[in-house]
Amino acid sequence: MLLDDRLPTPLYQQLFDQLRRGIEEGDHPEGSRLPPIRSLAADLGCARNTVESAYGLLVQEGYVKSRPGSGYIVQNVAFLQADADHSQAPGEGLLGADEDRVRYDFTYGNLEPGTFPAAAWRAITDDILLSVESTGCDAYNDPFGEESLRSAIAWRLATQRGIDCTPSQIIIQGGTQTSVQNLLALFDGSRDAVAMEDPGYDGVRTVIERARFTLAPCRVGAGAEVFRADLEASGARLAYLTPSSQFPTCRVMPIDSREAVLRWAERTGAYLLEDDYCRDFRYRERSLAPLASMDRRGRVIYMGTFSKSLSPALRINYLVLPEPLRDRWREAFANSYSPVPWLNQRVLARFMTDGSWDRHLRRVQAKNRRKYETLTRVIRETMGNDVEMLENGTGLHLLVRVRDGRGQDTLVRQARAADVAVYPTRKYWLDPAGHVSSTVLVGFSSIAEDDIEPGIRALAGAWFG
Amino acid sequence: MLLDDRLPTPLYQQLFDQLRRGIEEGDHPEGSRLPPIRSLAADLGCARNTVESAYGLLVQEGYVKSRPGSGYIVQNVAFLQADADHSQAPGEGLLGADEDRVRYDFTYGNLEPGTFPAAAWRAITDDILLSVESTGCDAYNDPFGEESLRSAIAWRLATQRGIDCTPSQIIIQGGTQTSVQNLLALFDGSRDAVAMEDPGYDGVRTVIERARFTLAPCRVGAGAEVFRADLEASGARLAYLTPSSQFPTCRVMPIDSREAVLRWAERTGAYLLEDDYCRDFRYRERSLAPLASMDRRGRVIYMGTFSKSLSPALRINYLVLPEPLRDRWREAFANSYSPVPWLNQRVLARFMTDGSWDRHLRRVQAKNRRKYETLTRVIRETMGNDVEMLENGTGLHLLVRVRDGRGQDTLVRQARAADVAVYPTRKYWLDPAGHVSSTVLVGFSSIAEDDIEPGIRALAGAWFG
Repeated sequence: MLLDDRLPTPLYQQLFDQLRRGIEEGDHPEGSRLPPIRSLAADLGCARNTVESAYGLLVQEGYVKSRPGSGYIVQNVAFLQADADHSQAPGEGLLGADEDRVRYDFTYGNLEPGTFPAAAWRAITDDILLSVESTGCDAYNDPFGEESLRSAIAWRLATQRGIDCTPSQIIIQGGTQTSVQNLLALFDGSRDAVAMEDPGYDGVRTVIERARFTLAPCRVGAGAEVFRADLEASGARLAYLTPSSQFPTCRVMPIDSREAVLRWAERTGAYLLEDDYCRDFRYRERSLAPLASMDRRGRVIYMGTFSKSLSPALRINYLVLPEPLRDRWREAFANSYSPVPWLNQRVLARFMTDGSWDRHLRRVQAKNRRKYETLTRVIRETMGNDVEMLENGTGLHLLVRVRDGRGQDTLVRQARAADVAVYPTRKYWLDPAGHVSSTVLVGFSSIAEDDIEPGIRALAGAWFG
Repeated sequence: MLLDDRLPTPLYQQLFDQLRRGIEEGDHPEGSRLPPIRSLAADLGCARNTVESAYGLLVQEGYVKSRPGSGYIVQNVAFLQADADHSQAPGEGLLGADEDRVRYDFTYGNLEPGTFPAAAWRAITDDILLSVESTGCDAYNDPFGEESLRSAIAWRLATQRGIDCTPSQIIIQGGTQTSVQNLLALFDGSRDAVAMEDPGYDGVRTVIERARFTLAPCRVGAGAEVFRADLEASGARLAYLTPSSQFPTCRVMPIDSREAVLRWAERTGAYLLEDDYCRDFRYRERSLAPLASMDRRGRVIYMGTFSKSLSPALRINYLVLPEPLRDRWREAFANSYSPVPWLNQRVLARFMTDGSWDRHLRRVQAKNRRKYETLTRVIRETMGNDVEMLENGTGLHLLVRVRDGRGQDTLVRQARAADVAVYPTRKYWLDPAGHVSSTVLVGFSSIAEDDIEPGIRALAGAWFG
């Protein structure tokens, strides 16, 4: 092993890459021990920190386990190679993939480089930091978030999404997961169950489980009736739903199910948490309004995000709380500060009101629509008879089910051999028995527009060629 | 009531101010109902949102209560006028005061306007958003935080605080409260008790209570023996401590207590959470190193902040976790993203490594030292025989105990009549019986240097003149 400090790649990353390769290629077999940190640092002539960080990444990526007293033990990594999820380098997000290694990456979540409107953001940041407003940098701020941002959001929700709310019902938060984590503080884990779609977004499931709430899975996919029966039986006080485009199945909750779900909440006094994560991206004429716009009795908590349209690294989203729940939140967080930096809130508020937001969104919407159209067209052209697409003309991903019943690990592995990354869906199912085996997730949030057609052609070749 | 949209004050704030004054002056007596939102909006010719927001602020400030079905009911506000804590306007933080109303505000927490290094921050932000690095804006990032920032922090902890840790043990978080909230996810609220100093920082106490953990108070102030006995009896798995300067009493934990506390943790397998919130500000030669620097068995979780030196609105702090706990964190948050915006982390990392941090800290340290010296000198000069100061030559606040036994509400009220804000300490005590009644908190983080001497002279006049 050799480290070169003239390369742009940090030393710890170089070391991590070499060790990972060594493990994948069997140089360090399962059960073997990595050299002690001190001695490897001495051998390589680098700092202990460098080795420590590289080992830390290997642990994080699942290549080794750290056992107190016995060092770093190499793990069985066969499954890692079958599972594209683990190909990510640190810093690239949970579904991100290592671009050095995969030519066509149909990951979901990260955005295409250049999406973030850096120039406009920079200009507004400049302006705010030059102005008298920057005294806001020196104080703890409103625990609900900046009034200017809450007003900008409320106005858009009222005018564009049919959601009647006031700025005082809006709480600026630091992302879906922290929102849900904080919301759960208003419920009692020892008593209240939380219902959740199954399959569903694993990031939220983790938060609910980590907070030690009982999770009541509600099956989707086999028809809305099944979902309702599960919901009725759940005894839940809170139900997490993605009605506009169920994640990951892309099912749209039909009107009668929406009404039934609302009636359930009204009857039982439960709340519905509507995660409207892909509202910004709709590629067909007809689409249903948010569940929150149908809510007349204050049972729906609406959750919106800027991660898909602006930046996942911005860490800003928001909740819209019915008034009684808003008051409960105010009480529970009376002694707390806003979790979101003041400057970021101010810049976003200005961005949303000075015309930048509309320009930006139109640009991103147009691009995503072209990507969606290319993706679905090329899949139809190259694999039309062999696969089924699960999509609803919204969002930034779809599911592809292969009709011949091949397992998803096989599909992922075959794709990978052709330098294409598609992703297994198993982890979204709470009940593995319900899991549809020959289905993979194909995202288009991160891949470049021009890579979609050659990528799908390569995939078709790998699967059916 | 009249609203004027040519004023710089937003309409909802104008309305809030007028209603608040009306309530304080008895125009709206306790138990009366505010006009319905729609009709007041119609009367004033403003939007419903404006009224809604103003009413929301009144609820937030405790002037009215919202009762579903019966509207907004005016509350008894006599206590609000006695308690300086409630004088804050929204957006000014929990201990912030309304500067329009108090000439000399000895609040604690918010920083003096101009503290935040806006020019340097702007230049670095510019540079990063112009560079290729800004592709980090488009991706979900490392859940532990940016490597560059973790390295910069680890290096300073090792070289300046005697804490031997690697970047892989550092987790970038969004403030003390969210850090503690996340840390508690590694423990089990149904089984694990959390020990906490009594008195102690109420912001952390709220988080522990909100997460439904059993809180075991450990008395400070009556001698280290009592504290140790309480800790021994607590059965806690985690103890929250401020050894360098106990909050709010400014006691420094003596060496033998430190050793006893470490031994307790080693023996019981508990963890100590050291909140070293005022490490950056020490005005005397001799001061004890952090508890974490004495820790040989990995029992101390170290927590550091940028809120006192840089900006409370930045919402960045960090935890240093012992390795086994770090691994537990990695597992619990495997499916989570960093809660802190990427850009802010990158800018701070650059700020800490390009020389800006050292310059900034020297400037703030020098200023706070002058403020501390003026404050203690003038208190001695004007009230030397009548009061006792509780302080240890660190931090940004001290306690003043009046020897004649007057209650703290009286002290706060008398100060307020002379246009001076000092703060009651009652809320820091979990057990009100232990509370030292004639003691108030005097902070100097926010007041201008030149206001300290006249402010303390006005206070002395109000109390003893």
